[in-house]
Amino acid sequence: MKAQNPHNVLLGFIGGTEGLFAKKMLEITDDVLSSYKNQGGFDLLGRTVDQIRTTEQVNAAMSTCCDLSLDGLIIIGGVTSNSDAAQLAETFAKHNCNTKVIGVPVTLSGDLKNQFVETTVGFDTVCKVNSQLISNVCLDAVSAGKYYYFVRLMGGKASHVAFECALQSHPNMVILGEEVALSKLTLMEIINKICDGVEARAARGKYHGVLLIPEGLIESIPEMYALIQEINNLYINNVPEDEIPSQLSPWAAALFKFLPSFIRRELVLHQESDNSAQLSQIDTEQLLAHLVEAEMNRRTKEGNYKGRKFSSVCHFFGSQARGSLPSNFDCNYAYVLGHICVQILATGLNGYMATITNLKDSTNKWRCAAVPLTAMMSVRRHLRGPGAVPIGRPVIHPSPIDLKAESYAVLREKASSFLLDDFYRTPGGIQFEGPGANTKPITLTIEGHDYLGDIEILQDYLNKVRTILKPGCSREILKAAISSMSSVNDVLKVMSAPLNAELPLYHFN
Amino acid sequence: MKAQNPHNVLLGFIGGTEGLFAKKMLEITDDVLSSYKNQGGFDLLGRTVDQIRTTEQVNAAMSTCCDLSLDGLIIIGGVTSNSDAAQLAETFAKHNCNTKVIGVPVTLSGDLKNQFVETTVGFDTVCKVNSQLISNVCLDAVSAGKYYYFVRLMGGKASHVAFECALQSHPNMVILGEEVALSKLTLMEIINKICDGVEARAARGKYHGVLLIPEGLIESIPEMYALIQEINNLYINNVPEDEIPSQLSPWAAALFKFLPSFIRRELVLHQESDNSAQLSQIDTEQLLAHLVEAEMNRRTKEGNYKGRKFSSVCHFFGSQARGSLPSNFDCNYAYVLGHICVQILATGLNGYMATITNLKDSTNKWRCAAVPLTAMMSVRRHLRGPGAVPIGRPVIHPSPIDLKAESYAVLREKASSFLLDDFYRTPGGIQFEGPGANTKPITLTIEGHDYLGDIEILQDYLNKVRTILKPGCSREILKAAISSMSSVNDVLKVMSAPLNAELPLYHFN
Repeated sequence: MKAQNPHNVLLGFIGGTEGLFAKKMLEITDDVLSSYKNQGGFDLLGRTVDQIRTTEQVNAAMSTCCDLSLDGLIIIGGVTSNSDAAQLAETFAKHNCNTKVIGVPVTLSGDLKNQFVETTVGFDTVCKVNSQLISNVCLDAVSAGKYYYFVRLMGGKASHVAFECALQSHPNMVILGEEVALSKLTLMEIINKICDGVEARAARGKYHGVLLIPEGLIESIPEMYALIQEINNLYINNVPEDEIPSQLSPWAAALFKFLPSFIRRELVLHQESDNSAQLSQIDTEQLLAHLVEAEMNRRTKEGNYKGRKFSSVCHFFGSQARGSLPSNFDCNYAYVLGHICVQILATGLNGYMATITNLKDSTNKWRCAAVPLTAMMSVRRHLRGPGAVPIGRPVIHPSPIDLKAESYAVLREKASSFLLDDFYRTPGGIQFEGPGANTKPITLTIEGHDYLGDIEILQDYLNKVRTILKPGCSREILKAAISSMSSVNDVLKVMSAPLNAELPLYHFN
Repeated sequence: MKAQNPHNVLLGFIGGTEGLFAKKMLEITDDVLSSYKNQGGFDLLGRTVDQIRTTEQVNAAMSTCCDLSLDGLIIIGGVTSNSDAAQLAETFAKHNCNTKVIGVPVTLSGDLKNQFVETTVGFDTVCKVNSQLISNVCLDAVSAGKYYYFVRLMGGKASHVAFECALQSHPNMVILGEEVALSKLTLMEIINKICDGVEARAARGKYHGVLLIPEGLIESIPEMYALIQEINNLYINNVPEDEIPSQLSPWAAALFKFLPSFIRRELVLHQESDNSAQLSQIDTEQLLAHLVEAEMNRRTKEGNYKGRKFSSVCHFFGSQARGSLPSNFDCNYAYVLGHICVQILATGLNGYMATITNLKDSTNKWRCAAVPLTAMMSVRRHLRGPGAVPIGRPVIHPSPIDLKAESYAVLREKASSFLLDDFYRTPGGIQFEGPGANTKPITLTIEGHDYLGDIEILQDYLNKVRTILKPGCSREILKAAISSMSSVNDVLKVMSAPLNAELPLYHFN
């Protein structure tokens, strides 16, 4: 920014949104930045509420930007923040506010992912730290040979972190929310699946193991989702916490009673402002461990399982993976995105996101772009439950794991080896020098299709066709071209016919 | 070993002690070792019970060693394993078993520490991984600015891990078991101390913080220790778990009732064979967080505290720090100890420990030695409670933190800055190359007095005196020498008079 014009000034809003609304800021000079460069955490500015949505909030943001005559407002965050950035860009333009709004894809959950955004800043670091810890737990498990470790990882709507960590550390089992949702697995089906794994391992004389689950798993289980919905509705209607159990539907009440008491207590806890069951407060890993133990005891009693008694240890890897020193990849990614923001502002674009594709390649082959935020937004029918958005409001939706993608095929292919062979992988702590210092997320290196690169390749072909078919070309060549183009056209018409992805998919099992 | 004689053979006992008793072993060839070198965990051989103590166990070990005609038995472990090694060495010698027993100081808790053993293999790695996680939590705390993190670390009898981690990561508060034991702080005094810290920070507008405690803290609190003793005694006398509360003394019962229900439940849990309350199963960090919250609410109600509501998040860093890739320092330390073992065996010594002093210096200045295990052993009066040893049995006792040492002074000096200034330090993950790859434990670099080096210096002086005072020296020089030596003798006689360190120290407060 200073290279473009030494008079350029960068301001940071204290606490993020709160500072934006209250016009509290700090000039970010080289001096201020020097001790924060390449460091983790949000402690330079702090963080408050990650939302700019209400009329008051939007107006406050707009008046700050106008008062300060800002050329640009750069909003750094995940799906929520970038959706808000798009709305803000539109509002600013409508009210002739000259500040251009730019989004930057930064979130550790990795659920802001599409053809333009291959991964988000922070995802690599969080997955590396978690994988390091998971592999430590794996080695501890196999050393003692007597405990099953149930490890819960961050990740609400989508299980990207658990997925990437599974590919990095090779635990014995991983249950992804997306798999459960697709197969509509019930709680007992999941428990039985885990118990079958425990039995298969016992048959090989193994009484230890490591199981990964994402935080959001509990919401992916159909009957648990329904129960959480009922509890949330009662809560929204101001039913006091102690009356909630008695007002559940008979069906939900039966499930509620079946759950161990510590989970019942956690389900009716509502501490945060958005009135939804706090996923990070539900000890799903303990629920599963508890139910697996009960089921293994049952199998032992009935004589179906003859192995040693099942024992478990539970872990939740939450804040200990955040605030980490960022990986080289995340630092590079963030620096380049910063440069792109300056270019976008210099061009005067509004409502765009700074993006880079072809990240799997070396830095000098990265492809920088400014993508309209609207290109990532869509309107869905009303979503019930936690995090619901009003009908008809276009937002950037969290992207679930693509179960048809190559990286998922890799995981499935290795699943039975992971389960039985203790094929643990030990990535160690994030390295800043030496071999391994420049590794990237495995999912990125497997999938990373260069969308913008492919579009360029297509443009090249179209240009070549145009050059060959200039007036004056032979009748035969023209005929061949018409035939080919008509065929391409037909194929693409069929392939791009609107497919309502939001309709429920019925499975005939 | 192979360099000494290519026909030398190294056997590893499967599962450690269990393999030793059952004569189950594995030849450790270069090939077997290749994929385990510089890796963490005990998964090459596995681990079972860390004890060779009963007559059956000792006899089984002896018959294995005799049957295999082993030249040496190398026992790797902490205070317990090395105490057992000493007893085994004596027993073997008495029964004319030719196998020499050698101990190697390896334990992550760092409590095998004396003038010969400056630190143990594993301690550096575990402290580095924990410090990495603590610093992540610190940055997360200061970023959000609204939670206090209560972090419990491994470490039973001694708080070395918590101490070293505090020096590495600079959390706001750390409570060491040794401090609590020395000052005989009650539970409520500890709570008040923490609450005063919370208030002092609130006065500066800070509502976040990080507190470290060692696993063993709960046993250092006098009234909690007494309660745990009573529960253990009832348990040993086969009182069923549900009757324990009603059979406590009125005093202990009152404390028991005061504790939150989740701690009460944990206190009466007895899962392991040694019949002692399982420290790692008592969520001391949750107990403290719970009581601090209650006390802060009381202070708010009484109008003494006017800050924001106190909120906490609890963590236990257990197995996720074990099984880590070892640090360069730990690898080097272990390799050199291995070489020393070969030398000890070649010399035919029995009942010795391989040691290295001057570890704080570069590797080529390390001072290798074989130290008789008995030099580290002492007899103490009967210890009650968990881990008690029979009266009169000489053992290597766990060394507590030396509160008079320089490194503790460093911590105390910085305590108020740590508390108020958020002077967090971010060591990051263990590095294997580049700057920081060869760091050592901070306590080691502060304290690391080279005991064996000092003994050599003294020997040098004595030799010089002897040379100067050869018959033929002048009367004056002889007179001066006698006067000086007599003075040295007097001083040392007083300083080395037996001081019964086991007598209780009375504090007049």
